[in-house]
Amino acid sequence: MTQLDLAIRGGTIVTASDEFSADIGIQDGRIVSIAGRIEGAAREIDASGLLVLPGGIDSHVHISQPSGPDVVMADDFASATRAAAAGGNTMVLPFALQEKGTSLRACVENYRKLAEGECYIDTAFHLIISDPTAIVLGQELPALVKDGYTSFKVFMTYDDLVLSDKQLLEVFDVARREEALVMVHCEGYDAIRFLTTKLEREGHIAPYYHATSRPQAVEREATHRAISHAEIVGVPIMIVHVSGREAMEQVRWAQQRGLPVHAETCPQYITLTADDMKGLNMDMSGAKYVCSPPPRDVESQQAIWEGITSGVFQTFSSDHCPFRYDDPKGKLTPNSRTSFRWVPNGIPGVETRLPILFSEGVSKGRITLQKFVELTATNHARIYGLYPRKGSIGIGFDADIVLWDPKLTKPIRQADLHHGSDYTPWEGFDVTGWPVTTIARGRVVFERGHIVGDRGAGEVLSRGKSSLI
Amino acid sequence: MTQLDLAIRGGTIVTASDEFSADIGIQDGRIVSIAGRIEGAAREIDASGLLVLPGGIDSHVHISQPSGPDVVMADDFASATRAAAAGGNTMVLPFALQEKGTSLRACVENYRKLAEGECYIDTAFHLIISDPTAIVLGQELPALVKDGYTSFKVFMTYDDLVLSDKQLLEVFDVARREEALVMVHCEGYDAIRFLTTKLEREGHIAPYYHATSRPQAVEREATHRAISHAEIVGVPIMIVHVSGREAMEQVRWAQQRGLPVHAETCPQYITLTADDMKGLNMDMSGAKYVCSPPPRDVESQQAIWEGITSGVFQTFSSDHCPFRYDDPKGKLTPNSRTSFRWVPNGIPGVETRLPILFSEGVSKGRITLQKFVELTATNHARIYGLYPRKGSIGIGFDADIVLWDPKLTKPIRQADLHHGSDYTPWEGFDVTGWPVTTIARGRVVFERGHIVGDRGAGEVLSRGKSSLI
Amino acid sequence: MTQLDLAIRGGTIVTASDEFSADIGIQDGRIVSIAGRIEGAAREIDASGLLVLPGGIDSHVHISQPSGPDVVMADDFASATRAAAAGGNTMVLPFALQEKGTSLRACVENYRKLAEGECYIDTAFHLIISDPTAIVLGQELPALVKDGYTSFKVFMTYDDLVLSDKQLLEVFDVARREEALVMVHCEGYDAIRFLTTKLEREGHIAPYYHATSRPQAVEREATHRAISHAEIVGVPIMIVHVSGREAMEQVRWAQQRGLPVHAETCPQYITLTADDMKGLNMDMSGAKYVCSPPPRDVESQQAIWEGITSGVFQTFSSDHCPFRYDDPKGKLTPNSRTSFRWVPNGIPGVETRLPILFSEGVSKGRITLQKFVELTATNHARIYGLYPRKGSIGIGFDADIVLWDPKLTKPIRQADLHHGSDYTPWEGFDVTGWPVTTIARGRVVFERGHIVGDRGAGEVLSRGKSSLI
Amino acid sequence: MTQLDLAIRGGTIVTASDEFSADIGIQDGRIVSIAGRIEGAAREIDASGLLVLPGGIDSHVHISQPSGPDVVMADDFASATRAAAAGGNTMVLPFALQEKGTSLRACVENYRKLAEGECYIDTAFHLIISDPTAIVLGQELPALVKDGYTSFKVFMTYDDLVLSDKQLLEVFDVARREEALVMVHCEGYDAIRFLTTKLEREGHIAPYYHATSRPQAVEREATHRAISHAEIVGVPIMIVHVSGREAMEQVRWAQQRGLPVHAETCPQYITLTADDMKGLNMDMSGAKYVCSPPPRDVESQQAIWEGITSGVFQTFSSDHCPFRYDDPKGKLTPNSRTSFRWVPNGIPGVETRLPILFSEGVSKGRITLQKFVELTATNHARIYGLYPRKGSIGIGFDADIVLWDPKLTKPIRQADLHHGSDYTPWEGFDVTGWPVTTIARGRVVFERGHIVGDRGAGEVLSRGKSSLI
Ligand SMILES: [Zn+2]
Ligand SMILES: [Zn+2]
Ligand SMILES: [Zn+2]
Ligand SMILES: [Zn+2]
Ligand SMILES: [Zn+2]
Ligand SMILES: [Zn+2]
Ligand SMILES: [Zn+2]
Ligand SMILES: [Zn+2]
Repeated sequence: MTQLDLAIRGGTIVTASDEFSADIGIQDGRIVSIAGRIEGAAREIDASGLLVLPGGIDSHVHISQPSGPDVVMADDFASATRAAAAGGNTMVLPFALQEKGTSLRACVENYRKLAEGECYIDTAFHLIISDPTAIVLGQELPALVKDGYTSFKVFMTYDDLVLSDKQLLEVFDVARREEALVMVHCEGYDAIRFLTTKLEREGHIAPYYHATSRPQAVEREATHRAISHAEIVGVPIMIVHVSGREAMEQVRWAQQRGLPVHAETCPQYITLTADDMKGLNMDMSGAKYVCSPPPRDVESQQAIWEGITSGVFQTFSSDHCPFRYDDPKGKLTPNSRTSFRWVPNGIPGVETRLPILFSEGVSKGRITLQKFVELTATNHARIYGLYPRKGSIGIGFDADIVLWDPKLTKPIRQADLHHGSDYTPWEGFDVTGWPVTTIARGRVVFERGHIVGDRGAGEVLSRGKSSLI
Repeated sequence: MTQLDLAIRGGTIVTASDEFSADIGIQDGRIVSIAGRIEGAAREIDASGLLVLPGGIDSHVHISQPSGPDVVMADDFASATRAAAAGGNTMVLPFALQEKGTSLRACVENYRKLAEGECYIDTAFHLIISDPTAIVLGQELPALVKDGYTSFKVFMTYDDLVLSDKQLLEVFDVARREEALVMVHCEGYDAIRFLTTKLEREGHIAPYYHATSRPQAVEREATHRAISHAEIVGVPIMIVHVSGREAMEQVRWAQQRGLPVHAETCPQYITLTADDMKGLNMDMSGAKYVCSPPPRDVESQQAIWEGITSGVFQTFSSDHCPFRYDDPKGKLTPNSRTSFRWVPNGIPGVETRLPILFSEGVSKGRITLQKFVELTATNHARIYGLYPRKGSIGIGFDADIVLWDPKLTKPIRQADLHHGSDYTPWEGFDVTGWPVTTIARGRVVFERGHIVGDRGAGEVLSRGKSSLI
Repeated sequence: MTQLDLAIRGGTIVTASDEFSADIGIQDGRIVSIAGRIEGAAREIDASGLLVLPGGIDSHVHISQPSGPDVVMADDFASATRAAAAGGNTMVLPFALQEKGTSLRACVENYRKLAEGECYIDTAFHLIISDPTAIVLGQELPALVKDGYTSFKVFMTYDDLVLSDKQLLEVFDVARREEALVMVHCEGYDAIRFLTTKLEREGHIAPYYHATSRPQAVEREATHRAISHAEIVGVPIMIVHVSGREAMEQVRWAQQRGLPVHAETCPQYITLTADDMKGLNMDMSGAKYVCSPPPRDVESQQAIWEGITSGVFQTFSSDHCPFRYDDPKGKLTPNSRTSFRWVPNGIPGVETRLPILFSEGVSKGRITLQKFVELTATNHARIYGLYPRKGSIGIGFDADIVLWDPKLTKPIRQADLHHGSDYTPWEGFDVTGWPVTTIARGRVVFERGHIVGDRGAGEVLSRGKSSLI
Repeated sequence: MTQLDLAIRGGTIVTASDEFSADIGIQDGRIVSIAGRIEGAAREIDASGLLVLPGGIDSHVHISQPSGPDVVMADDFASATRAAAAGGNTMVLPFALQEKGTSLRACVENYRKLAEGECYIDTAFHLIISDPTAIVLGQELPALVKDGYTSFKVFMTYDDLVLSDKQLLEVFDVARREEALVMVHCEGYDAIRFLTTKLEREGHIAPYYHATSRPQAVEREATHRAISHAEIVGVPIMIVHVSGREAMEQVRWAQQRGLPVHAETCPQYITLTADDMKGLNMDMSGAKYVCSPPPRDVESQQAIWEGITSGVFQTFSSDHCPFRYDDPKGKLTPNSRTSFRWVPNGIPGVETRLPILFSEGVSKGRITLQKFVELTATNHARIYGLYPRKGSIGIGFDADIVLWDPKLTKPIRQADLHHGSDYTPWEGFDVTGWPVTTIARGRVVFERGHIVGDRGAGEVLSRGKSSLI
């Protein structure tokens, strides 16, 4: 055996099913041996006292997306992947968003260009279909699936993105034929418009009313509708960012009927509530928490935990969608003060996803270490066609590994973060359990609080077929 | 006490809660006394051995509605009310259907003109809102509610009638403000179009595929959507013609959450199945059973019975929507042979509703006599603002009474019916329990198999507020 | 027509389905006419402004039952029926309790003797089976059913009453064969003993721990067990005194499966909570609220209302089981201070059942007048084989009528009550809607706050077969 | 590194979460290395084309238990463990059954003696508590838990084993305090006795009526009761051998309420039905399928699959309980012909559990390979305190490994089996996917259809605390 490039020694390896102490040998960016004792590597990292986990995969992040006139997203591919690595991730899956009237292929090429040469860790794109014309459905989409864009997201709301039920059914039908996975953003457009108009007429324009304008019934209805459409077409779907009890119960109901309905949830739905958006009158600080679906209440947090522990949810993602707060191109765009409707919609989270779930889940005894790995890495790899290259620790896998200190306790602080936003919704939030070293394809990207990897080392990958198909 | 016009003697009076033997005294079209023995009336009817029931009210019938180019509905107001009376009814509630681009008020006046002077029994109109413009919502509808048009139906499907979710929410909102009751036809337009196109492409054009094109999931989805919209607006609704287990379970789920969601079902959903639409290739006889939602299967019939006995359903109506079969202006319109899509959609049922429910429900021991009265008369009167003038037997009520022979057994035969269709979907269906005499406002309209009432004796009534509001 | 004994004039008659204004004519204790205007009776009662309701029937009261050494029940048949009449009732159904080792027939005769000549209104006995020997099951019980004792209660707890599962099954099997109705007290004996011992060991002996010793899970388990046994045997059952969400959901689940499972609830479960049993240390005032099952919490009150409005419950009874409070033979028996286990178990309620349900239900808009009549009179008559003699207002019914002032507002006060207890659990509870005159078989028993009927005027009746069989 | 004892080369390693190709190095009975290529071991096994799985652990087998007068169980520890190894298992967990009136400690010692020196693979004992005296609960049980008997089974039926509810609660309470896991056999004793007596009286004595005497409602009731008792005490439980939809739904209901209720199912419940017990009159061949709970119907098989795929079940065991068929000391004991009640109750299955689940689950596409490993090995090890010594493939684990040929297709034949029974309930059942080599603690026990291991090589192990505690 030729010399190993790297050995990780003395740690406790954790996979989605197991846990044992062993050393790991790495060569050419891949894991080549796991044994009680591995010596003679070019470099050794001492992992004693640490957990050795598959690097986090965040399958739901938004980077460099257009976000309305005069609004700019706070992260480009360099800053987003840097932040991701600092948060224990070795891969992120952003979206290539089709703008209405444009070619899907061209859109994909544009996003690739933005990403290539910029990323610290590997990435791969989902598509967002906003304009399912006959050409898109009949030609571009099938060709892109064959090229490795094997998942796409559709929206049931937002002026520029909403698909009609007819269009949803047609996209689902293409996904069925091409064996791609559809991710669905479930909130009902017309109900939101109805409530928004009503609230604005009543003078309720503060950020807090963002939550009032999209109550759980709105999300639940759209969830039921998406499930029904998928059942009618006969296709698996992934319901993304489920926020509360009512949508969760629809997913569970579908799963119990044996339908291939899968679901994702996010840190905001186990830690924040709609009350975080409150502020006196037009105190704008609530804008920091404006995202969709909005955080609900404590009872819904409980429901999301039920869903996590009982297997309703397969993935836990960040839905990272970063804006700056104190910035006219961010949350405080002039329009924001005229109505919650115009507040840039999204929160940063790629860097804090793993510590939040570890702390609230593992450290507080709600979930096992195995469940943590499954929800944050393995299932993302399987579901989005990256397995067995990514998502676990085994012979032949990419050496995507994060060393984790389960005892390290410190609050989340914006000052410590690497993302492009000027704030974090979790400022001061206490966390027990932090990543200390992130290794991507055998190279250390982040250690002791610092980014040490190279911009451009991350690649844009094609993906295979989802395990859900 | 001045002399009574009519006494009904020796029968067993049944109301929605009670049952006892007594005579009934009638004067000026109203019930004025109930006692052990009433003598000296101008006319006496011997009801010994018979049940004395409140006359049936059928709150869901279609009469003289435009039904597409070159298609003609088989009943006008004279024939429909004649058939209704022969089937034990003393009142029907047809629809005044707004055509797109027309005034709701004008539409109502047109329908009134068609009805006035023609009816054998009383009628009152629901509205159908197909074009909820600002004027309709802001002016016509509120004014019409004040004039006694206190209920209206909206559609979630059909090219000419479908409302968008936004429009549904706005109509619901007006209903909430004006205290009117909305009836909702729950089938999802886009899913039906998607499936219809698919079936036609596959060459599946026979009448049977009508059912395939609108499966239970399509009705269930729309039912959930309607419930959600009503919950968001905060308004009671009536889900009409629930056809199977899946929609029924949505209604029950809503009711258990405490939402004011009410529901109706019909004879076709406890007696017919989708298989009745079958026929070899384009054997068109299946067209006789084409209605929407389509009949389902035996398991769903069981579910509908569960809903009936456990209180999920408040009303049992016919959804009478009559066409002739062997007629180029009826089911065999030339277009019908090109696709199920063009088969005139609806079946006749106003004359057979009560015998079918009595026979399948009361005679077979599934429901009590009281439940029969509640589902066929009392609840219709309460829910559509006719109570306490209509719907029961008590002092002061209109003398709308049907004498019923619970032992009379004979099959349903088109030859015996009075409706305008040239067939009945229940030809040969065995029934135990038939109406023998129908009395409307104190006048005998139907007896011993013959219509003896006067055309024009029935009036078009205004209605008060629904008991559900 | 010979002269009427009594006319009730000008009131609004309410039945379980209807409501209209009319006079009522009464002769020989029965209703003989209902009409717009009835004149010439020997006596007239002016009911203008009042509701004319079927007299309340309380199918669950305990009178003169042995209740442990040195404890005496606070009501005999005279005082209990006097209180019942003052509370708007015209009939009560107490229990004849078999003591272990004794003959059921002898037990019945003893209770009859206690009742005969004492009652102000009619009564009829349920049996309590505590010792289902071969003779009891094979001979006494069948004979007693034939004699009109058509219902019996069995207990799943209490040292002297508990039946084993085998015995329950055997009693159910006799009920099935003899077409009698079994009422089941559902709390699990062993679990209560287990928890009671545990609490006593921990020094938790105050009245409050009565509730802790029989949590909802204990009632839910026994409810599920009783339902399963009834399903196995194939017999309808009545689950009495359902107290909270968990047992209610079991009943609803059974009903949705189509099982003939019926249920009763009581005033304590919509108005009291376990906290009412609280007191500092051994402050004994909590003993006033000790009954089984114990009142739960506000959430369970909500669940009971759901069950009432959606039809899960068929009857609303008092479970009147009266003791004096400040009395060594009542709640303050010396043993009570040594453990909640010894606190005489039961609360008085026969006089306050109807005002509480009217006020909380009808006056607060939760239920209709019709539902009130159904839950308090009509269903009791039907279910316990007294219909059509009792339970409604119609020709031929006993003239059992209560005149009700729906606007009269005053609090419940022990000083105003007629029962034998020295307190009421509802002292100071505000009520809108009170009975003002009670008429039993045509004779006024209670009016203007005073008992005016005759001791002994009430009879002990036999009953026919339950409508649930 | 000293020389390896054994290398398994070229196979595909599968764990409960992962799957990758690698070699495995074994030394001193443990796995010491996993790598792309491992050479130089004393012995090499070529696993190319095979799956390399953790050896099966069967946590529910009965061996050498007393089974009634003149009835003898068909397996002793030698034959049972030999059969287990031939079926791909590397460990079994039999029961040490306390007979009433005897010491638990003595019972354990007796069983150990029967096992020691006899076993081909490792074993460990659960206890069966049939006589929970004060000494057993207060002294023997706590001491035995400390000695590594960390799980025990209790029965809700069987004359010699049934515990009262009080006893169940007390055993649960000890389990809670001592942190042991209780396994519960959920069938209701009294209901079975009631039905058995009834069937026998009706002359229904053939083996088939075994199923009739213990219908799903009997199992469901006991399951609900066990869940409730566990909830009241506050202790996790394992419901063993869940057989059908109704019990499964109780477990799911409990899990959704967040209760720590876990469940096991078995091959008979996905492959057999009650009809297998049928035979003309007293054709005794149905006796071959008599076990408790009895197999149900096809719908229940579907429900069990739903439970398997959605995570309701944590373990899949055999409930191996072997008797000979054509043997007066087996199924054909003279008593068997007098009533199903006396048919020796149980079926052999330790050798066929893994092939059946692999074939029906993995080969037919219902479950993943990972789920197979989880249900047959990893979860057994975790739940019964054997992890991380047993249950997976990782560094430091016992080298308990089975090589599996996923393509090998052949029917199950008694002629090929190694157990002590003279029949298998699955004679002729087609299976795709068979074990080819079983390696226990690094030694080959079974290969190419032959047992090659040594009697006595297996040890009786102590166990640690369950992961469910
Ligand atoms: Zn989204
Ligand atoms: Zn997103
Ligand atoms: Zn319709
Ligand atoms: Zn219609
Ligand atoms: Zn009781
Ligand atoms: Zn009681
Ligand atoms: Zn067992
Ligand atoms: Zn067993």
